[in-house]
Amino acid sequence: MRLALDVLGGDNGAAPNVAGAVLAVNAIPDLTIVLVGDQPQTEILLANASFPAGRIEFAHAPTFVDMKEKPTEALRKKPDASIFRCWQLLAEGNVDGLVSAGNTGAVVVGAVKTRKFLKCIQKPGIATIMPTARGRCIIVDVGANVFPKPRHLLEYGVMGSVFARKILGIAQPTLGLMNVGEEEGKGHELVQKTYDLFRASGLKERFVGNIEGRDIHRGAVDVVVTDGFTGNVVLKLCEGVFEFVMNMVKQDVLGVLTTERDTGIAAVKGMLGKYHYSAFGGAPLLGVDGVCIICHGSSSERAIANAIGVAATGVREKVNDAIVAEIEALPKDE
Amino acid sequence: MRLALDVLGGDNGAAPNVAGAVLAVNAIPDLTIVLVGDQPQTEILLANASFPAGRIEFAHAPTFVDMKEKPTEALRKKPDASIFRCWQLLAEGNVDGLVSAGNTGAVVVGAVKTRKFLKCIQKPGIATIMPTARGRCIIVDVGANVFPKPRHLLEYGVMGSVFARKILGIAQPTLGLMNVGEEEGKGHELVQKTYDLFRASGLKERFVGNIEGRDIHRGAVDVVVTDGFTGNVVLKLCEGVFEFVMNMVKQDVLGVLTTERDTGIAAVKGMLGKYHYSAFGGAPLLGVDGVCIICHGSSSERAIANAIGVAATGVREKVNDAIVAEIEALPKDE
Repeated sequence: MRLALDVLGGDNGAAPNVAGAVLAVNAIPDLTIVLVGDQPQTEILLANASFPAGRIEFAHAPTFVDMKEKPTEALRKKPDASIFRCWQLLAEGNVDGLVSAGNTGAVVVGAVKTRKFLKCIQKPGIATIMPTARGRCIIVDVGANVFPKPRHLLEYGVMGSVFARKILGIAQPTLGLMNVGEEEGKGHELVQKTYDLFRASGLKERFVGNIEGRDIHRGAVDVVVTDGFTGNVVLKLCEGVFEFVMNMVKQDVLGVLTTERDTGIAAVKGMLGKYHYSAFGGAPLLGVDGVCIICHGSSSERAIANAIGVAATGVREKVNDAIVAEIEALPKDE
Repeated sequence: MRLALDVLGGDNGAAPNVAGAVLAVNAIPDLTIVLVGDQPQTEILLANASFPAGRIEFAHAPTFVDMKEKPTEALRKKPDASIFRCWQLLAEGNVDGLVSAGNTGAVVVGAVKTRKFLKCIQKPGIATIMPTARGRCIIVDVGANVFPKPRHLLEYGVMGSVFARKILGIAQPTLGLMNVGEEEGKGHELVQKTYDLFRASGLKERFVGNIEGRDIHRGAVDVVVTDGFTGNVVLKLCEGVFEFVMNMVKQDVLGVLTTERDTGIAAVKGMLGKYHYSAFGGAPLLGVDGVCIICHGSSSERAIANAIGVAATGVREKVNDAIVAEIEALPKDE
């Protein structure tokens, strides 16, 4: 199996990406990584690394898309940027998937440009894994498609559900539609129409209906379906609330401890690690012909290695074949 | 000053409402409360209460809107339900404001039915107060208007800003537009057009631009403007994440303490109280001619009394006069 890694993507430059690739090829026997970026710089970073011979390759890309750059503009000005080069490799069949910690918009624009979508998929969506009181859930979409059609949300339900089965090992994943109330008929036109589509689809047995914001972390469903605008707000809000509450815990709870303060500090550190995004291995861009995992911009080498691991599992488990089979079973109309 | 209280609204029946009213009239010297609900039942609940003579009145309403009922249907079937009777009292000029812990949709539908909107306001919006790392912020709208126009969001910015000034005492409140990224041009058409409206408005000096989900709790702005769909998800998600994290703290942090366990438990209880919704006195429905505060369905008597206190401050501080003055200063076009 071959995966491309966008070496120049992310907030911290090439070093954590290259180190993550080394960790991954040492951990996964049948994996070859193509490091896509500035080749001379990449070779320097690899100089002292130890890894199985021939399992790391290079594809030169002289430049990259900055985290703050407008993706469509970047595509016009820098068609040879590292993330676009990754997509070319995928389109040419040179790799089975790609991993990037770079500009998320540019990852999506690269996908749309190469048009390597799965059969019957109208729009790719980004999924993310969240911890819940009952384990983990998947939220799709968290930002690829900020103004989707009902059909797109139905596709996200199918794709999230396959991902939950193949990657999280949930045999019969339940699905919920993010809304402002549980009752049928709640919300705006998009969710009302999407609700009806789910009810009429082959997913209806596992579709529990509308869910509310507070249901996500209670673990009400395995797959949360939402538009990319709401999903992106949800994703970043969770990060913000978690950070806020943990800071308050440090101040209000750890602050009053004396003899057991160190025990408390260690426990808080454990919690921070357990629920940190890096533990969840990146966010898959679902619907693309190939596996694509998007990582947090500030990913550590461990986070990059985890994301590569998820991509490898996606390829090995043939997630996309399963998605196509389920999508083809849906009614074709919008 | 006279305020109507929807005695039959909420998950826990009349008792916490009546007890909250008693607390409020004892605390606020110039306040008269009209208890709107089943009068015989209300009188029984008041039998042993102590409060200044003549400062509690009754308006009989034989029925109420259930928390799960569809608001428009309820209005058709039960025009004499307690919440609608509250709105009638407001429309007749009998009271200056109203407080309800009942079905939020019914509160909004009641407002729309009486059409007692403020001059120049096209749509009312619900505001909520959130704790942040730097104090408190206001989010508008959290559910009154799930598919707004840009002009509505501009009005929410004005109203939230006046509320922040008059009720939270923030002299020059800053405003941010909820979006999926900070850069101009991000998001769907609604937020793009709203961004331009703010930039061209009299609020432009205090409008910091787009904000992301993680910025809310960091205290990036004093007023967060968003559509009612996103805002409602945000509101309930915060509740869910807070609950989730605090449960993990109980398990992972308190669970490892021994000698200082009781100290830790007390500190966690303190945090739960400090950030509980009841500490923030309910959610104002802004844009209505009169003051309207919506409370959480499971409000305690303390939460009801706090909400009545906020309503009284809103009347006393002439929040609505200030809103009209600021709205009239805006450009009239959409």
